Amino acid sequence: MSASAVPARLTDGPRLWADLMTMAGIGALPAGGCCRLSLTDEDRQARDLFAGWCREAGCTVRVDAFGNMFATRPGRAAGAGHVLVGSHLDTQPHGGRFDGVLGVLAGLETVRALNAAGIETERPVTVVNWTNEEGVRFQPGLTGSAGFVGALTAGDEAAITAADGARFFEDLHRTGYAGSAALQIPVAGYYELHIEQGPVLEQAGIAVGVVEGVQGVRWLAVTLTGEDRHAGTTPAGERRDAFMAAARLALDMRTAAALLSPDLRITFGRVTVEPNSTNTVPGRATLAIDLRHSQTALLDRMEGEIRAAVAGLAGSEGVGGTVARLMDVAPVHFDARMQAIIASAAERLGIRTLRLPSGAMHDASNLATVAPAAMIFVPSRGGISHNESEWTEPQHVTEGCEVLAQAVLHHALQPAGPW
Amino acid sequence: MSASAVPARLTDGPRLWADLMTMAGIGALPAGGCCRLSLTDEDRQARDLFAGWCREAGCTVRVDAFGNMFATRPGRAAGAGHVLVGSHLDTQPHGGRFDGVLGVLAGLETVRALNAAGIETERPVTVVNWTNEEGVRFQPGLTGSAGFVGALTAGDEAAITAADGARFFEDLHRTGYAGSAALQIPVAGYYELHIEQGPVLEQAGIAVGVVEGVQGVRWLAVTLTGEDRHAGTTPAGERRDAFMAAARLALDMRTAAALLSPDLRITFGRVTVEPNSTNTVPGRATLAIDLRHSQTALLDRMEGEIRAAVAGLAGSEGVGGTVARLMDVAPVHFDARMQAIIASAAERLGIRTLRLPSGAMHDASNLATVAPAAMIFVPSRGGISHNESEWTEPQHVTEGCEVLAQAVLHHALQPAGPW
Repeated sequence: MSASAVPARLTDGPRLWADLMTMAGIGALPAGGCCRLSLTDEDRQARDLFAGWCREAGCTVRVDAFGNMFATRPGRAAGAGHVLVGSHLDTQPHGGRFDGVLGVLAGLETVRALNAAGIETERPVTVVNWTNEEGVRFQPGLTGSAGFVGALTAGDEAAITAADGARFFEDLHRTGYAGSAALQIPVAGYYELHIEQGPVLEQAGIAVGVVEGVQGVRWLAVTLTGEDRHAGTTPAGERRDAFMAAARLALDMRTAAALLSPDLRITFGRVTVEPNSTNTVPGRATLAIDLRHSQTALLDRMEGEIRAAVAGLAGSEGVGGTVARLMDVAPVHFDARMQAIIASAAERLGIRTLRLPSGAMHDASNLATVAPAAMIFVPSRGGISHNESEWTEPQHVTEGCEVLAQAVLHHALQPAGPW
Repeated sequence: MSASAVPARLTDGPRLWADLMTMAGIGALPAGGCCRLSLTDEDRQARDLFAGWCREAGCTVRVDAFGNMFATRPGRAAGAGHVLVGSHLDTQPHGGRFDGVLGVLAGLETVRALNAAGIETERPVTVVNWTNEEGVRFQPGLTGSAGFVGALTAGDEAAITAADGARFFEDLHRTGYAGSAALQIPVAGYYELHIEQGPVLEQAGIAVGVVEGVQGVRWLAVTLTGEDRHAGTTPAGERRDAFMAAARLALDMRTAAALLSPDLRITFGRVTVEPNSTNTVPGRATLAIDLRHSQTALLDRMEGEIRAAVAGLAGSEGVGGTVARLMDVAPVHFDARMQAIIASAAERLGIRTLRLPSGAMHDASNLATVAPAAMIFVPSRGGISHNESEWTEPQHVTEGCEVLAQAVLHHALQPAGPW
């Protein structure tokens, strides 16, 4: 069957929406959100439900050594690379109904749509649920996809930590999702549909985003050291106030970031002062800074600005400082041909698109290190996620899923062989 | 015995110094300081040690409903008002060896000196250790002296809060220092020897300060509410960052205070952000502000500036805010006759004095609301306190204690009756 014989619309938006709401019943929270932390009983229930739906859709469900679930619809070409499509079913503690889940269930909807249209593909289409994307219970996050691409070693409990003392591979056994280390899925391309988690698409009034890549992320730890002094007796000119220094650094660096690039994100998310006593001028402050940009050079420049500003606090505030890197994840650039496939699919459907970077990390970031990968975004109301009030309009879910399905189909119809 | 028969020097400076160093062993910190937060096990140990020393000196030790400890050396006149002398044994988290402790142990040294000289007084001399002066674990601070003067009600847990969830009166029971609500000590006058905690005496090269009064102190709690957002996906313009708002408030209010008066002190000593996660824009920040000045009108104006600035953050940062008064202590003016007694005692001893205000609050501020009260200061090296490196020269400790003892003796020799 050729691409020209494909029906104009493949997928059933209301069916996908119903699945999303059914899935949201597992770990449901009072304000409409979900709590399905990875490898808890709620996660196991979600996995079982998903596996059942996949089998009903005729897929073979397999699990690898990281608990990643692969539901495969076979293709005609023996041994061809799979078109992989999916995301994750785990959520934040006060998570929403769409983050991750949408990408997994839209993959399933794609398979159902291919079944309904009676379409055979050259390549297998495999829907994937990656384990512990969120990184709430187990650190680092993106665990399953990191294991899949070889960045983590199966069975190495020491490499994965949990604040609650849980052990990742032990919990895979407990939940019945410890799979085969021998399972190898050759990947022709990986597609992930996800909510944007930012405001860009909503503000532009556009339903589908073609994601160019994922911003690099750098975490810096800043420690500022002044002097503990009595709040009542120490004149302003005698103070070496670590909090005032922190305040100055934060505001100055916000300005510096805006001057470097409007796309540079800087966040002071973690702040502590010591001794944290009302009547003592703080002698110490510690700050964690999250920097994001799609260009490493800009992250380098911003880090340089921060280091210079911290050094300058000695003169301006009498406060010394150190800067250390806690994390450094390079920017990811998604496959240009796959971006074109997505954009063309949307164009054929008459859906306007916007190219944009991803501010958040996704499993696609890991996949991009070993295979062609791409992402599709749909709008998040108010740009809000990691929050029970997370919301995407049903119409946008429908549009996003249809573009995904068309792109996956286009890719899966390509002749087997290296792509 | 008349005042003229009193020996020229009463007290034993080296003995007092040895006591100070022994006491500093309880809750000792690596850099020479102390951590004895109120009603912790360390505080209990300090109290037990002090009580033992007092009993060895022949005193009766009694405890009131706020855990304040009163060690009394009787006088000849039945029912006469006591000459009360003391301070506090609790410290800041990174506190020094002198703040508070000096006044308590110099009171004890005064009693020992009277014993050694075989002096009987008309009035009882009572050494006091006030509970929770520092206000680190429990707010408001000066708790014990506030209870003593009737500004707090015994047993009212709701009036005293603790960040760690501790309950003040419960902790008095736990440490064995829940005393009698019936205990009433009539006060003829209250003397408190304390380190200056500021640079004035050291810079003037003078060993003893006669304190004229205490600056007014106002504590404000500011809560700023923005919105938790993803650090990677939320553009600067969409953020309602409670920490950035806090930083702006702190710097703006530091400038505003400098414009109002060079003597106005403003400190942001306690700062927390929530959720305190590196990759989340903080949706909430709480700040405690300490304001000090000797004029109530200026404190009012500064509070007005803060309230206006917090209200303005809604427009400038999209962050809402509330301001609440946690504490409001009016400026205090010490008893003129007691200041004269101190100055005369120093003059007889050939010790130069300087009159100065206190930047810090002290239990004497509370006592002054119900009885004549006065304070003596000795120099703090570099003006530093609330810091492990807090230091007062042994010679200054000796001079201050001697002036204290002579003043207390002079006062205690006065005939009983209203003073």
